[in-house]
Amino acid sequence: MNLPPPGDKSIFQRRESEARGYCRRFDVVFGSASGALLRDVRGREYIDFLAGCAALNYGHNDPDMSTALIEHIQGSGITMGLDLHTEAKQAFMTQFERHILAPRGLPHRMQFTGPTGTNAVEAALKLARKVTGRHNVVAFTNGYHGVTLGSLAATGSRYHRMGAPLAGVTRLPYDGYLGAGFDTADLLERMLDDPSSGLDAPAAILLETVQGEGGLTAATPAWVERVASLARRHGALLIVDDVQAGCGRTGRFFSFEGMDLQPDLIVLSKSLSGYGLPLAMLLVHPERDQWRPAEHNGTFRGNTHAFVTARVAVEKFWSGPVFQMEVARRAQIVTQHLERMARRVHGSRLKGRGMMQGLDVVSGELAGQICDRCFEQGLILETSGAHDQVLKILAPLTIGLDTLERGLAILDQAIAASMVLGLRQAA
Amino acid sequence: MNLPPPGDKSIFQRRESEARGYCRRFDVVFGSASGALLRDVRGREYIDFLAGCAALNYGHNDPDMSTALIEHIQGSGITMGLDLHTEAKQAFMTQFERHILAPRGLPHRMQFTGPTGTNAVEAALKLARKVTGRHNVVAFTNGYHGVTLGSLAATGSRYHRMGAPLAGVTRLPYDGYLGAGFDTADLLERMLDDPSSGLDAPAAILLETVQGEGGLTAATPAWVERVASLARRHGALLIVDDVQAGCGRTGRFFSFEGMDLQPDLIVLSKSLSGYGLPLAMLLVHPERDQWRPAEHNGTFRGNTHAFVTARVAVEKFWSGPVFQMEVARRAQIVTQHLERMARRVHGSRLKGRGMMQGLDVVSGELAGQICDRCFEQGLILETSGAHDQVLKILAPLTIGLDTLERGLAILDQAIAASMVLGLRQAA
Amino acid sequence: MNLPPPGDKSIFQRRESEARGYCRRFDVVFGSASGALLRDVRGREYIDFLAGCAALNYGHNDPDMSTALIEHIQGSGITMGLDLHTEAKQAFMTQFERHILAPRGLPHRMQFTGPTGTNAVEAALKLARKVTGRHNVVAFTNGYHGVTLGSLAATGSRYHRMGAPLAGVTRLPYDGYLGAGFDTADLLERMLDDPSSGLDAPAAILLETVQGEGGLTAATPAWVERVASLARRHGALLIVDDVQAGCGRTGRFFSFEGMDLQPDLIVLSKSLSGYGLPLAMLLVHPERDQWRPAEHNGTFRGNTHAFVTARVAVEKFWSGPVFQMEVARRAQIVTQHLERMARRVHGSRLKGRGMMQGLDVVSGELAGQICDRCFEQGLILETSGAHDQVLKILAPLTIGLDTLERGLAILDQAIAASMVLGLRQAA
Amino acid sequence: MNLPPPGDKSIFQRRESEARGYCRRFDVVFGSASGALLRDVRGREYIDFLAGCAALNYGHNDPDMSTALIEHIQGSGITMGLDLHTEAKQAFMTQFERHILAPRGLPHRMQFTGPTGTNAVEAALKLARKVTGRHNVVAFTNGYHGVTLGSLAATGSRYHRMGAPLAGVTRLPYDGYLGAGFDTADLLERMLDDPSSGLDAPAAILLETVQGEGGLTAATPAWVERVASLARRHGALLIVDDVQAGCGRTGRFFSFEGMDLQPDLIVLSKSLSGYGLPLAMLLVHPERDQWRPAEHNGTFRGNTHAFVTARVAVEKFWSGPVFQMEVARRAQIVTQHLERMARRVHGSRLKGRGMMQGLDVVSGELAGQICDRCFEQGLILETSGAHDQVLKILAPLTIGLDTLERGLAILDQAIAASMVLGLRQAA
Repeated sequence: MNLPPPGDKSIFQRRESEARGYCRRFDVVFGSASGALLRDVRGREYIDFLAGCAALNYGHNDPDMSTALIEHIQGSGITMGLDLHTEAKQAFMTQFERHILAPRGLPHRMQFTGPTGTNAVEAALKLARKVTGRHNVVAFTNGYHGVTLGSLAATGSRYHRMGAPLAGVTRLPYDGYLGAGFDTADLLERMLDDPSSGLDAPAAILLETVQGEGGLTAATPAWVERVASLARRHGALLIVDDVQAGCGRTGRFFSFEGMDLQPDLIVLSKSLSGYGLPLAMLLVHPERDQWRPAEHNGTFRGNTHAFVTARVAVEKFWSGPVFQMEVARRAQIVTQHLERMARRVHGSRLKGRGMMQGLDVVSGELAGQICDRCFEQGLILETSGAHDQVLKILAPLTIGLDTLERGLAILDQAIAASMVLGLRQAA
Repeated sequence: MNLPPPGDKSIFQRRESEARGYCRRFDVVFGSASGALLRDVRGREYIDFLAGCAALNYGHNDPDMSTALIEHIQGSGITMGLDLHTEAKQAFMTQFERHILAPRGLPHRMQFTGPTGTNAVEAALKLARKVTGRHNVVAFTNGYHGVTLGSLAATGSRYHRMGAPLAGVTRLPYDGYLGAGFDTADLLERMLDDPSSGLDAPAAILLETVQGEGGLTAATPAWVERVASLARRHGALLIVDDVQAGCGRTGRFFSFEGMDLQPDLIVLSKSLSGYGLPLAMLLVHPERDQWRPAEHNGTFRGNTHAFVTARVAVEKFWSGPVFQMEVARRAQIVTQHLERMARRVHGSRLKGRGMMQGLDVVSGELAGQICDRCFEQGLILETSGAHDQVLKILAPLTIGLDTLERGLAILDQAIAASMVLGLRQAA
Repeated sequence: MNLPPPGDKSIFQRRESEARGYCRRFDVVFGSASGALLRDVRGREYIDFLAGCAALNYGHNDPDMSTALIEHIQGSGITMGLDLHTEAKQAFMTQFERHILAPRGLPHRMQFTGPTGTNAVEAALKLARKVTGRHNVVAFTNGYHGVTLGSLAATGSRYHRMGAPLAGVTRLPYDGYLGAGFDTADLLERMLDDPSSGLDAPAAILLETVQGEGGLTAATPAWVERVASLARRHGALLIVDDVQAGCGRTGRFFSFEGMDLQPDLIVLSKSLSGYGLPLAMLLVHPERDQWRPAEHNGTFRGNTHAFVTARVAVEKFWSGPVFQMEVARRAQIVTQHLERMARRVHGSRLKGRGMMQGLDVVSGELAGQICDRCFEQGLILETSGAHDQVLKILAPLTIGLDTLERGLAILDQAIAASMVLGLRQAA
Repeated sequence: MNLPPPGDKSIFQRRESEARGYCRRFDVVFGSASGALLRDVRGREYIDFLAGCAALNYGHNDPDMSTALIEHIQGSGITMGLDLHTEAKQAFMTQFERHILAPRGLPHRMQFTGPTGTNAVEAALKLARKVTGRHNVVAFTNGYHGVTLGSLAATGSRYHRMGAPLAGVTRLPYDGYLGAGFDTADLLERMLDDPSSGLDAPAAILLETVQGEGGLTAATPAWVERVASLARRHGALLIVDDVQAGCGRTGRFFSFEGMDLQPDLIVLSKSLSGYGLPLAMLLVHPERDQWRPAEHNGTFRGNTHAFVTARVAVEKFWSGPVFQMEVARRAQIVTQHLERMARRVHGSRLKGRGMMQGLDVVSGELAGQICDRCFEQGLILETSGAHDQVLKILAPLTIGLDTLERGLAILDQAIAASMVLGLRQAA
């Protein structure tokens, strides 16, 4: 085929849009991957604490999924099926009902939207507006829900909002936004109750229980429950955006398990396929399932290859209790290490929960330096938060204990080195 | 795994959202597919004139793509790579530049958005607004650009718009909307020139050269060229939405080839991966590539499996002139048959061009009956148009001549039978 | 009080906002006025063909209105009454019902909004949206409905729209917008009937029967009737904005008299008070009067002084047929003179109807020169139209025949002189 | 003229829109008024504690203004002057500069918009958006700024917003909204500083220093100053809506006098004409005066009769310090009485400041009963607040001391009587 050598990056410089992002920090060409490891075309290995930004909760190229997918391809299984009934879809839906929905008492229906989180968020917002006949939606500071126009209106980041005249969302402070002394649900409640607050009766309240892009801020169960109860009292649908925090990332399948609430709509994507293939699903409470046929459509609603791997993921990881225990153990290890690291950085704070933890090191510049240093040492790690000040650990949930320890050690050393450098520069 | 029998549809009834669409008309469970044929789990074969709604221009499960994809999986090639540099991406971009962009004199950059057409349309609209500092966008009657909020504002269908207060789009009549006697570009020109027309200076003019969902209406080259020239004169970007009409569907790679114009932004998706895998790309003229890093983002921007198959598609079908000639031949056959069928239905008209042709049979009810009858006879075919009154033939471009003839024969008989029935009912 | 001399304009330069407009062309200080004459503080007299931009249909300071108003003030009549019942309001409403509504078979109710046209247009749009539960409004090219945000969305002028992201309006071409050969109501009908046109079902169709600011374009009765009938058929309210064309300006009280239609909502302002005092009224068909108490409010809804003079205006001018005959006679004189003038200017066209006529002289620069020359000769006259290319004659309806002739003679000479000058410059 | 008897209300029932409001509670026909007294057509007198909803700060029909206005009319002074220079306008502007702007060090220019508060608010918002190139505006809970679409977006009342999809405003809690323990400016500051708060950089912050309709809530000077300083720091214009609180209502001409700030834009209306005639003015800092000629226009921008009376008001009340002292004395009397009344109602609180005080009696039903009882006893008084729970005393600033005492006594008795009744009902 006469291709340039695998490591040649000139095509990216010549022909890829300036919109590209991650590849700027991790500026090598990757060739293969397995589990928690990525390899560049020169053969160098990297521990992956980014994990497709939580789209690879079960690691890269899980062998059982690879096998199932190859079998499917070799058997000429459907690849592109629009929203037709297919064997692969039937199998996935059956197992998702059996192992995920039924045990958790969720009567929800599955809606396959375009295979990205933002597509499913758009569907959720549209459905909530249809069902309630209302237009306004409550979303929260530092929330991230995607960059198509409907989702973007609910997303907090000024960088992504780009000054566009976005409409239909009232923004309120997330849990803890003004410090521990002030329960921000007080403001929500007051504004909902007050007919002159300027808060139009909302179609929905949209939230993440842990804000992934917003800096790994985890809401307390009490706050989420209160918001859920306010939503119900005021006739608004509760939409939980579990795109990043769902599929086991916080330790259980849904991030809101253990809280006393049942969302009307639940948005899943990222790790849903289990294998990193694009897939998104909106779970819709049957009473809210007021769609007319194809009212929200799209060519790639459903992705048959992703159904194949998603089914394997559900069967392999969620048919028994073992996986959750293993995730809990890893989460505990992360916490312990982060606590130690936190002592190195003045003013730093632990953020998040489960396998969605990180360290707020106050300064985005510092966090960036640490990430760069980690990459030099073979660890891929990103930041999040309003000022990119939070070191975000999104390791695969299936990561081996020693790999996890190795990665954390690299991070620890990078922090230590940055601190020493900072002291020298200050001196 | 203890799954229900493959043909059991109860899970769909029990757990799939009412939003499901195609599966209502084609209510069987599909199991496998190759080329232009779909098979249900009972082994029955169907000729596919829907082809993933033009996402399967090269048919189901092209063997070369299957092979390449299996190889990629077996070699632990990257599956999920965010927008990192990967070998597969490098290879695809190189070949797309070599075989598609360079020969056509297009200096455009590639932007990988979320892997659906609507994601790329959203990116295009956002970029046009950013580059021009303007807000308004001109879109056309019967246009279809997707159902996320930004794209939906540009989409004509009231069914999908759902009465939402959509903003930022001025709607103007598409070519031929008021019959042959009136050039609708006159209205566009007049309103652009008139400072009191109420048409705010547009950031972009967004159009399909053939309206796929809108009823297979093909604009004349003269009209498209005039619109392009008006866009340029008034400082608006020209966005060609080639999601359905691109990737060879009209006979050449882009639907606007042969017209005297160069779009600022070109939206591709559907058949871009060649294999029916989700992928979308926005082609951006370098002068318009004013994105900041990750300003428009998303987890699944780029889909590595799709890069693998898309590369094969480009190499296999677009590195020489043969494929285009074969498509032209098939298109001619379709035209001939449609002309004959048109004589059966009073008032019917041929629509579209290339392998994107159909027959407007005036009545949506009649068109629906014909589709149902085709399905009974083993042909999958859908309608489009404002009243679902256009029988839409979207056969794979690679369909064998005899399969094509067989499908057309089924269609012809279905039309004939419906006419007879209609006469009987009228009598 | 130690004020500067009356002709001193320094305070305007020092302290008036740059938003000021008319005073730039007519840059003297005016002191008094009667009938069709204005006088500046130096005693120079001007014939007034602007007439408060049609707010002075009965001329300046009608003596009967002056007397009634002085009596009211001397008797300590209510000046500011919010929307309380007052004697003056009772008297006005009674006479308006008796002499205007009842004889024309209009069952409409009177709603007093803030005393400007745009306030009443806003009320009309809001009510139409409430009554229909729809959001979209159809408005027309070159329409002018005011500059508050709701009305502005329906106004065509780019200068006034200022690039703001205005929403909720679909813009369609007004009668004759594309020349005599194309009936623009065809497009409206087609888009209303077509479920994929992108025209959301409208709450209202809003129009002026003669576009005052838009260049004195008069719609044909057939077109207006067809639009009215389309509105009814599609469940949209018909709103006639009679702010400039109403109150006798076109020869009868309402501009749509003689047409076969009954608007749901009629907007009046400008000459409604008869005396140039701020007043606006929305006439609401009883079936549409679905307001809740004070749902649309405002401090100055109703203006008691204006009720006093408005009552006199109704009694004096509209209790018998004489006034309308006198207006018709004046309109005929204007037409005759304009026809003669039109022969002087190549390509010029007569515009408008009744006492709302003018001459389109093609060039805004030329029209401006003519206005300036008129002002030098003691005639106040303005332009309108998208390019300010229409000389607009809005003389008081009560103007004396000799004053009218004198004014027209000045205009004729100004045109002649500009033509001569133009020829010289061209030579 | 053959009118029905003055007290006949049938015309209102027959022909006035259901939108009417105040006349429902005060259901008599008023005939004349002077100072703080209104008289109905039967000759009954009422003390006016509503005062045209603060549009009559100098009482009804001030004799000096009456005289000046009659003189103006008798001298054929201009009534309707569009925005031409007139003698009356020159005189008003000169005195407003001399007695109001210059002594307070305000370099602002005067822009005469349509003569209602909402017109001037619309102009302010539009200018702020133009000057900053930003779209978003911060407004506060319980704010009231008018009901045209632009102002309505900034208004808090759900009743007036009517569920419309209003855009362009971020709503934040006003001072004290969450009780004394929480400074709501903390949230504003946090959200402005946080690039992921979802608060787009605002064009303006719009506020009332005392919320008239919102329940007479007075912000502390410290809070207003902090907001002003945040606006400046973040490049947003500060707009003070002094429509209700300005023109002396709080004791000084502007409500923000004594605070350490200078608004970019100040909105005045209501009592600006001094006589209850419609007039509105936007004061624009010269650096912000970036209007192009007539960019914001309207027929009744400026109201010449109102200029005549407004000039008298400025000269008579604001050329020396006496008036302010008299207002302060009356305000003190109101406070003393309210404190006594507050003891009668469990949980009640004093609200407001200056001559814009009231009593929050917790229940809207109770407040309504008290108002009704007052009206029976010859006192006109209204409620405000989200639940209409605040008795609002807006007596003329010029009210005689004995009339003030009489009015307060009626109110006191009405409260006492309602309490007794409440006790009986409870028993």
